[in-house]
Parts: sequence; C-alpha cells; structure tokens
Amino acid sequence: MPRTIVKLTARDIRMPTSESKAGSDAMHVDPDYSAAYVTLETDARDGIIGCGMAFTLGRGNEVCVAAIDALKPFVLGLSLEKITADMAGFWRRLSGESQLRWIGPEKGAIHLATAAIVNAVWDLWAKVERKPVWKLVSGLTPEQIVGCIDFRYLSDALTRDEALEILRKRSGTRAVREAEMRERGYPAYITSAGWMGYADELVRKLCREARAAGWTRFKIKVGRDSDENVRRAALVREEIGPGCLMMMDANQAWDVGEAIDLMRPLARFDPLWIEEPTSPDDILGHATIRRAIHPIGVATGEHGANRVIFKQLLQAGAIDFCQLDGCRLGGLSEALAVMLLAAKFDVPVCPHAGGIGLCEYAQHLSLIDYICVSGSLERRMTEFADHLHEHFVHPVVLREGRYAVPEAPGFSIEMKPQSLDEYEFPNGARWRH
Amino acid sequence: MPRTIVKLTARDIRMPTSESKAGSDAMHVDPDYSAAYVTLETDARDGIIGCGMAFTLGRGNEVCVAAIDALKPFVLGLSLEKITADMAGFWRRLSGESQLRWIGPEKGAIHLATAAIVNAVWDLWAKVERKPVWKLVSGLTPEQIVGCIDFRYLSDALTRDEALEILRKRSGTRAVREAEMRERGYPAYITSAGWMGYADELVRKLCREARAAGWTRFKIKVGRDSDENVRRAALVREEIGPGCLMMMDANQAWDVGEAIDLMRPLARFDPLWIEEPTSPDDILGHATIRRAIHPIGVATGEHGANRVIFKQLLQAGAIDFCQLDGCRLGGLSEALAVMLLAAKFDVPVCPHAGGIGLCEYAQHLSLIDYICVSGSLERRMTEFADHLHEHFVHPVVLREGRYAVPEAPGFSIEMKPQSLDEYEFPNGARWRH
Repeated sequence: MPRTIVKLTARDIRMPTSESKAGSDAMHVDPDYSAAYVTLETDARDGIIGCGMAFTLGRGNEVCVAAIDALKPFVLGLSLEKITADMAGFWRRLSGESQLRWIGPEKGAIHLATAAIVNAVWDLWAKVERKPVWKLVSGLTPEQIVGCIDFRYLSDALTRDEALEILRKRSGTRAVREAEMRERGYPAYITSAGWMGYADELVRKLCREARAAGWTRFKIKVGRDSDENVRRAALVREEIGPGCLMMMDANQAWDVGEAIDLMRPLARFDPLWIEEPTSPDDILGHATIRRAIHPIGVATGEHGANRVIFKQLLQAGAIDFCQLDGCRLGGLSEALAVMLLAAKFDVPVCPHAGGIGLCEYAQHLSLIDYICVSGSLERRMTEFADHLHEHFVHPVVLREGRYAVPEAPGFSIEMKPQSLDEYEFPNGARWRH
Repeated sequence: MPRTIVKLTARDIRMPTSESKAGSDAMHVDPDYSAAYVTLETDARDGIIGCGMAFTLGRGNEVCVAAIDALKPFVLGLSLEKITADMAGFWRRLSGESQLRWIGPEKGAIHLATAAIVNAVWDLWAKVERKPVWKLVSGLTPEQIVGCIDFRYLSDALTRDEALEILRKRSGTRAVREAEMRERGYPAYITSAGWMGYADELVRKLCREARAAGWTRFKIKVGRDSDENVRRAALVREEIGPGCLMMMDANQAWDVGEAIDLMRPLARFDPLWIEEPTSPDDILGHATIRRAIHPIGVATGEHGANRVIFKQLLQAGAIDFCQLDGCRLGGLSEALAVMLLAAKFDVPVCPHAGGIGLCEYAQHLSLIDYICVSGSLERRMTEFADHLHEHFVHPVVLREGRYAVPEAPGFSIEMKPQSLDEYEFPNGARWRH
C-alpha cells in the first residue's frame, strides 16, 4: 500500500537563549536558537509522522516558515514510495522549482526550507523502515545511495561513477565499523564553554566540568580584538592543559588580511583550526588564509550554502576540515554529495552542530560518513553543545566526549509536543508575555 | 528638519507573464514577473514616498515580502538624514543584523529584502533632492560615494583608498560624460526576441521589428539540446545579419564540461558571450569554461548574490562581462562596490535587466558606472526587455537601441497605484479568479 503525504505543517519554534548569551559569537551576539519545524502526515493512519527542521537564530525563522509553506504544494499528494524510488529527482524538483529557485537558487531561506522538508522525508522513510536514519543509509547499496544524490554542477569534480567507486570501496566492511561505533561511539568536541558573551569565571568553570566529564577537545570563540582573543585563548589553554585539542571560531568576523594577522599571536596556543575566518562565500579568501597560517588548519561549512560552494572549497585547497551542516545544505540528500566530495579530496568531515537540533542531526551524518563513505576517524569529530536537548523525544547521548549511536527510528529530530506548544512564536506560553 | 521614516509597506505584486511564455528560459520555464514592492513614508507630509522592489518569478515573492517585514523594525523611526550621513553603516546594520543574517548571510530572500529597502531609501533620498538617482550619485564627491559602501570582506581585492583613487580619476570629467549621455543615451541590447518558449515565427518577427527600430545587439536563450541551440542560433543570425552582435544565455542549465561541449557548435554564430553557463556560485567553474571557450566571452551576475562572489569572479579571471543586478545585490549601495571592483579589474559592467522594474533600475546603474566609475563605454551595454514598463510612473525610454537618460527624481521604480492594486497577489482583480 502506498503511503501518501496528506498534510505538511510548518511551525515557528524559538528558544530565548539570548537571555543567557548561550551561543553568542563575534557576529551573532544574541541568538535565540530556533527551528522552522516541519511535520509530514500520511494517510497510513499508523501514527508515524516525518519530522524535520531548519535552524535559525530567531528573527527570520518566520521567513523560513513562509518558504516551507511555499514548497508545500510540491510535496502534498506524493507517496513516500514514489519519493524514495527517486530521491534525487524529488530533491531536484524542490530545489529547482522553476519560480521558487529565483529567490535562491540553493541558498537562503528557500534552501533552509528545502532542508527541513527533505530531512522530514528522510525521517519518515526511516521510521517506516523502523531504523535510525544512519542505519537506513547504511543498509542501502552504493547504487541506491547514489540514487539519492543530484549530481548537477558536480561532474567536473565528482562523477556518479567516482561516487559509486568510493562507496563500493567501503561497502564490504560497513558491519565492522557499525559494531565499533556501537561499542565506542563517535568522537566529539565541545563548544559550550567558550561562548563570546560568557564571563571568564564561567568559562573556567565550564572547562573544568567538561574535563571532568571526559572531554578532550574544546572550541572557543574569537573576534576582532586581538588582545581579548589572546587573553581568552590563554585562559582556556590553562584550564584544559597542553594535552587537549583547542579549536578557534571567528564566525566570519574578519577580512582576509585581518584573519592572517589576528591568527599570528594565537598560534602559540596551538589551535587545530580557525573556523569561519572570513565570509563563508569567499572560497579564494579561505585558500589564501590557509596558505598563510599553515600549520593551523582552516575550517568552514556551517554557512556553506550548497554542494557547489563545497566543491570549490575542495578544488581550491581552501579547507582542512569540512564542516557541513545537514540543514544549511538542502538536507541529507545534499550532505551525502558533500561527504562524497570530501572523501574524493581526502578532507575530513567534521559536521557543524550546536544550536537546537543540529547535534541530533549531526550524529547521523558522522555515522554515515564513517560507515559508508570515508571509513576513517582520522582528524574527524562532531561538534557538540550542551543546549536544549531536553526538547527532543530522542535526544543525543554523550559518553566521555563521544556520541552514543542513536537507535530510535528516524532522524532524532522529533520534538516533544509540549515543547512545541510552549515555545511556538509568538503565541506559545513562553512568548505570550 | 529631519525627515523620519514612519511607515514601511511591503506588497506582493505579480504579473501573469507565464501565460505568454515571455521570460522563459532553460531553467525558468514559466515566470510570472513579480515585485516585492516597498514604500517608505515619512513624517514630512509633502507626499514624497520612497519606492523600491526586489524582483522574483512569482512563487516565493511572498517569502521576500515576509523578509522585508522582518527588516522593518530596523528601518522605522530612522531619519533620512541620519541614514544618508552613514549609508555604509545603515547597509551593514541591515545586512548584518545579528539574528536575520543567519538566513543569508547576504543571499537569498533576506538579501533581496535588503535590496528592496536600500533602494527605497535611495529613491527617497533622490526625490528629496529632486534628482534622479544617477544624478544624485554623480553629484556626490568621491569621499561621499565611498562613504556609502561597506568594504567588509573586500580589502584583499579593493581598499577604500583604491576605490577613492578610481573615483577621483573620473571626477573632473563627469560633466562631459553626463552631457554625452543626455545627447546620445546609453547603449542597450535586447532580450525580448529570443525567449525559450517562443515559436520560430514569433522570434523571426520580433527580430525584424527590433532591427527596424534600430536595435543592433540581440540575446537569445540556449539550453541542453545542442541541435535545438544550433537551429535557433542560425535562425536569429539569419534574421539579424552578420553585422549585429549576438549574445547567448544558458541560465545555469549546464555542468562545466557540458558548457564547454555545447558552446563548440555555437562558436560559428560568433556569440559575444555565453551568459550563466553553469551554477552562479561556481566561480572556479566559470574560470574553467572561460579558458576553454576563448574568444567567446563569459558573462554572469544576475544571480551573483553579493560583492564577495563578484570579488572572486574577478580575482579568478572568470568573467569577461560583469552583469550585476541592483536588486539581487543588496541595492545600489552594494552595486557601487561591485562597479568599483569591476573597474579595478578592468572588466566591463553590463547590468542585468528585464523582468519587471529591472530596466528602470539598471539605467541608473549604467549611468553611474559611466559617469563616475569606469568612464568607458567599451564593451558595455545594458540589457533591455520590452515588458511591463507601462506599470511605472516614469518608465524607461529607449531610442534607437539606447536608453534615454531618466530625468524624473528618484530611482524610476515607483509603480502606478492602479497597477499595484490590480496585480497585488492574491487579492488584486487580476488574481482573484
């Protein structure tokens, strides 16, 4: 029996995180972590719903909800079976819709909306199969995985055949890595201690608590004040000691030359990478910075709008770490393409997470990357921030600085009904006053 | 007396152009030319309103309207005097708003919304000064023009001082070029004959009519069917003869290798450029195509989201023609930055136009480029499509294939009240049925 999507709902869910400065950085001083939250209902009457979301910082979340509503007519009435028989075609029809693509294409609010819907379809598919999304993908053949990817604009860097070859090379040993993940979990790093708006004592306390909980990889925010950057880096290095990894994140605050100058005094704290040193669109700028600050690595991706941006970051030798985001890109379908590109160029994937729901998504992406695509943990880790997980039906589980493998069916992104009601903007109880 | 903005209205205006296939191309088969239309009202009670718009293809226009509404709190209550005293700062506050930038940054619906508002401010400013926008800018000193530009992310390619130098080089001779423009108009090319969805006989008829009206520069649409491309190119070349310029536009339909292959059989029709051969984000791809198809030029820009994309297109030697769009970029303020970048790299600016309102905008951009920035007409021309000008209070005037200089105060973008009412979506008379 085909299962037809008969209802798509988009809701504006916002958390008042700006009150505590959680999530604050050089460019985003007051984020209210928010979700443009999608549910797909079908005519199957078995209670299974597909859930997906795009992440935003509060204002503008309603624009993404409007963009999801604009895509609704291209989803309603389709059967899950028809969609999953040609996931690449479904993705191209959404992302390439002949009128809507003008307000992207493949970027901005309309692409965030595509992500939310595409991931809701993956969630629905996985729930129907009674598998977590990572396990659903790990059960597909290389041909089936490639059938989920729109290769438009990629063929000069990655052909369908090359993608197949990468996947086939790993397909015989998937079970070994799956067992390893179930036993050990996937390595993570923590961002929660180093927010820009936090006072020194709070940063120290959070570093100590994280060390005690087994964390060995830490990220801090840096900005335009060089002395302040040095001071904060010294403070964190002092707390975590020389044996832990430290990463730095500028959140797009710098021009190219500024990035090179401002990283110089930070080199002595031995950062593994500088993240988002400049505009996320500046491929050539990242390449220039990378050449200048070696051996410090360059990382970017949370604002990498689509696979064409990542293709060029890789072609230009602009990055050491590929920080794809499963709902900045047009959902898992496009993230698969970027993982394959990264594998081809031998650049490690370290997914962007944090915010709300991003850790829940990212754990699946990293497992798929390890089990199906790259087959490697070298220089790989998934971001973690300790916020807002209590709103999810199946929140992430971290143990000793590693993500435990999610076992519940779906994409782990379903939120609790009471959270949705309470934090809906502007009429939920939390916002009504 | 300061003039304070007390009301901002955003309206969803759509024209049913898909009925005639006007504007159709390889990727946009059924555009309904639309405007997310902004008006700014002030407390001055003199009837002067600032008008601006972003252009879309119909569906999704409501998303841009939502994005304009999201920016409204950052505009209301500001005085025109305070804004114009620091246009760069105003632009940065809009485009870099700490929560809203997440759904861009500087791209997609939120950047189109920024464009509509920023251009409405330019329209308001020019009307208050009783000058057309091009003349307002031509009356600013180099220092004042540079004061309108946010140089963030540009300094590795263009510094403020270099921009000043470019402007100063032309400032003594502005009056000569202004007089020349008033006498001769600015050269244009016509796109109206070559839409993808038009039957051969209609294309022939339109070519003949345009030739008779004095047009000597023609653009046609091409797509993924090589035989069809050759057939249509031959037909148009036959109609316009060997002495006219022919340009081709693929509207992003091709992969990089495909573009190179598909241009080979078209070379014999002597196209000046191929426009948007691939993804508008693919800077390196355009550079590869350009090297391969020389001496055919490469043009792009109508989907160039921001100055960082153009900076790289120029740095990478990816384009022969810079087709900036004054409402895809974040309004005139960002277009000025791109014009200066193009001048530095000695690449001609040929603004994208057509749609609805784009010709009205583009004529100002070209005049500013010629009078203040590049000082050259070499390989420069502004696009023209003969649609929907009747809805504007001061429509463009074309004579013998050249734009006549607009003399009415403002940005020429104010629409007639009856057009706004009739075509408002979904409740205007034209859409109600």
